[in-house]
Amino acid sequence: MNPLKVTVWGENVHERQSELIRGIYPQGMHNCIADGLNEAPDIQATTATLQEEEHGLTVEKLAETDVLTWWGHRAHGDVSDEIVERVARRVNEGMGLIVLHSGHYAKIFKRLLGTTCSLTWREAGEKERLWVCNPGHAIVQGLGPYFELEHEEMYGEPFGIPTPDEQIFISWFAGGEVFRSGATWRRGAGKIFYFRPGHESYPTYYDANVKLVIKNAVRWARPEAPAWKDAAPNIPVDKAPEKITAWVRP
Amino acid sequence: MNPLKVTVWGENVHERQSELIRGIYPQGMHNCIADGLNEAPDIQATTATLQEEEHGLTVEKLAETDVLTWWGHRAHGDVSDEIVERVARRVNEGMGLIVLHSGHYAKIFKRLLGTTCSLTWREAGEKERLWVCNPGHAIVQGLGPYFELEHEEMYGEPFGIPTPDEQIFISWFAGGEVFRSGATWRRGAGKIFYFRPGHESYPTYYDANVKLVIKNAVRWARPEAPAWKDAAPNIPVDKAPEKITAWVRP
Amino acid sequence: MNPLKVTVWGENVHERQSELIRGIYPQGMHNCIADGLNEAPDIQATTATLQEEEHGLTVEKLAETDVLTWWGHRAHGDVSDEIVERVARRVNEGMGLIVLHSGHYAKIFKRLLGTTCSLTWREAGEKERLWVCNPGHAIVQGLGPYFELEHEEMYGEPFGIPTPDEQIFISWFAGGEVFRSGATWRRGAGKIFYFRPGHESYPTYYDANVKLVIKNAVRWARPEAPAWKDAAPNIPVDKAPEKITAWVRP
Amino acid sequence: MNPLKVTVWGENVHERQSELIRGIYPQGMHNCIADGLNEAPDIQATTATLQEEEHGLTVEKLAETDVLTWWGHRAHGDVSDEIVERVARRVNEGMGLIVLHSGHYAKIFKRLLGTTCSLTWREAGEKERLWVCNPGHAIVQGLGPYFELEHEEMYGEPFGIPTPDEQIFISWFAGGEVFRSGATWRRGAGKIFYFRPGHESYPTYYDANVKLVIKNAVRWARPEAPAWKDAAPNIPVDKAPEKITAWVRP
Repeated sequence: MNPLKVTVWGENVHERQSELIRGIYPQGMHNCIADGLNEAPDIQATTATLQEEEHGLTVEKLAETDVLTWWGHRAHGDVSDEIVERVARRVNEGMGLIVLHSGHYAKIFKRLLGTTCSLTWREAGEKERLWVCNPGHAIVQGLGPYFELEHEEMYGEPFGIPTPDEQIFISWFAGGEVFRSGATWRRGAGKIFYFRPGHESYPTYYDANVKLVIKNAVRWARPEAPAWKDAAPNIPVDKAPEKITAWVRP
Repeated sequence: MNPLKVTVWGENVHERQSELIRGIYPQGMHNCIADGLNEAPDIQATTATLQEEEHGLTVEKLAETDVLTWWGHRAHGDVSDEIVERVARRVNEGMGLIVLHSGHYAKIFKRLLGTTCSLTWREAGEKERLWVCNPGHAIVQGLGPYFELEHEEMYGEPFGIPTPDEQIFISWFAGGEVFRSGATWRRGAGKIFYFRPGHESYPTYYDANVKLVIKNAVRWARPEAPAWKDAAPNIPVDKAPEKITAWVRP
Repeated sequence: MNPLKVTVWGENVHERQSELIRGIYPQGMHNCIADGLNEAPDIQATTATLQEEEHGLTVEKLAETDVLTWWGHRAHGDVSDEIVERVARRVNEGMGLIVLHSGHYAKIFKRLLGTTCSLTWREAGEKERLWVCNPGHAIVQGLGPYFELEHEEMYGEPFGIPTPDEQIFISWFAGGEVFRSGATWRRGAGKIFYFRPGHESYPTYYDANVKLVIKNAVRWARPEAPAWKDAAPNIPVDKAPEKITAWVRP
Repeated sequence: MNPLKVTVWGENVHERQSELIRGIYPQGMHNCIADGLNEAPDIQATTATLQEEEHGLTVEKLAETDVLTWWGHRAHGDVSDEIVERVARRVNEGMGLIVLHSGHYAKIFKRLLGTTCSLTWREAGEKERLWVCNPGHAIVQGLGPYFELEHEEMYGEPFGIPTPDEQIFISWFAGGEVFRSGATWRRGAGKIFYFRPGHESYPTYYDANVKLVIKNAVRWARPEAPAWKDAAPNIPVDKAPEKITAWVRP
């Protein structure tokens, strides 16, 4: 098989504005996520950021992307609607999409799911324990029954999403909340996975289990067929599978 | 129970531009659909159209609407994005939405489903036979195993939708195609029903079976609870259900 | 509307074998659950138990039951396969089914869902907090964002179920686990709700929130149409909707 | 990748009882289906039949089967309940299952889906046209928008199934009916595909498109992880992820 081409999209704002975040992710969060993916010989990850022309998501770049990962937080509103539509079209054509953490409020996620994508939250650096809901699923291979992140932001239910196709993880938080922290949906030919962890002020994307899940997820989200180009063709009367004649209004 | 308040939204363009369509629907398609609904004593239907201020869908009007029906075709692009977002918000709060025929390409339908909503089509006035897929569903009560429309536009698969929550009708066309012509989805607290029939150049909304289905559908889509207002509240440490202390970065 | 006819089925074994359980539920768990339902003027609940002839679930009794609730634990294997098939048929016809707690392993639940229905468990009388996943759903009306049970058995993920149609509750346990403690499915014309709480050694079915949820749930599960009788009719050539002639093998 | 191990199960009754069917499938339908699969170098198909000991589905045979295909019709009742449970367990562990044609009424299909699986039918050798509902799905790769079978039995809606995870095909019949002729579900770790064509009295399993779909389907249904063994472990207090003490009844 050809290597899996992943584009890691990063908002790249916190890292530039905050010394604290830059201390954790000196090359930016997107490069840390891409480095994790590139540990796997079958994956070829590159990056794109908000600040690049067309946010780094040109028609050409997306055309050759098998799976796109998305992390954004502070600057959701700065993402151009045109690029959002372009990404939505590619997902419907078959490109995989992995939405990370605060990406729950990204335009592209709300555009594809149709719901509010709201949740409750608290930043207290508390413990998160992610439970595996289906040990037979490709995305959780290599994990035990659960894994923990010692310090994370809390996200709590109700999470404003349509019923997932598959529930992959549910999180337990020390402060008493729960959250559907891993879930999948399909839109057109494209597979979508939402994965909760990854607040910018914790070193979550260095965590071995988190890296493993993201690797598994991009493999799972790989297109299963050549891009399916959207079309709404007219089928004229003489091309109908059954012989018919057009009705003539009396 | 209080009467069910339905707002019938109509694009109201074909009726004003074409003598043929005006001949079929002299008061506009929206008024014909509303008249059908108002045959039922438990339903109170009013109308709103593209040409009115805010397309007739003011905050107040939507706040008191239990179920909105949507017919549009030629002027999807003229519907303001702001109004689309307003309707999407109300659906997530619990307002029912019935999308009719060419509304498959309405901004609001694509916004809520997240897919292309594309299909194939042919206008030959051919016969459509709608089969009931689940005779135990509320929306099909009063129908037999199928009903027919002598002259309709053809819509064919592939229909670019996410898997429906429930498949209600599938259509057979004389020209040889099939189509998922009745299907439901839930977005937040709101119920959505797509119903295929209703091309402007045929008297479909006078058909007794079509009128019955739309009546059943608005009753089925009635909100089951008071509007659920979107929010993403912060839960501070001292309001966490379990006693925790915020982590102090070392 | 006519009163909603609910049959509360109870295994009725623990109560007869254990003084501790009898002390909590002197009339049996089934009578406590039925009493809770009968607080509502629109609900008419009666009981049936394993020990009765045909387990109290005769053809006649089921025919007049709108919604059946099911609690079993120790004696799942003693339920006759014939009665299980009879109940499954009625659910497919439209009868609602509420499966409670250890009923996750009841023959009828596995028969309808098709999966293992397995889970992890611990009996330590620990705290359970049930979070509402969709505040706009009929089943959670009257609740706040969550409610707590001070002492309950723990059930943990992975819960071996097909993806629910709707996720209603997720539980947080003091010992660190999570569980999909409220979920719905549809089978044929019938609505199914699984609700986790209710271990026999705690007074859970006296809890005001638990009673409220069960009341809401039976109303939600009410049949939406007359019973849909299963059939697989032959449609002979001369009854085909389109005129065809049978192919004659050459 | 290792070759995909497929077991083709055949009821093998019509072929032995009827000269007509034997004329079409001299080696039995199961051998024809297996031959089609074995055209692919990545697939290794063997057969098993009702008449063999344990219907050819021993624990060992199933343990090494990646995907099982199932054709039965006249003798559903002769399949032992124990073997049905064994197959259901393997599906939940991750084995793929392809159910063909009249297998809609097989014990294993009803056991896994939970519904009646009923439908309407007519044997008139009429034309069936199968439309692709999602051109981006792995199962339809290599097909055009539709394919036709000149002579087939008719199956019609309502088809008594739970909402599929994915709708793959819908059939149009010359006699006027429609049918959800290709659909998927997941049970535990196992993927299920139902595929309608294949009445015993037509040479359907020699058809190039039918053979292609079955090849695609077994590849799609391949287990995505090692078998997930069912368990319902007790997690004692001292193994709880969070330190708790068992509640002592006052």
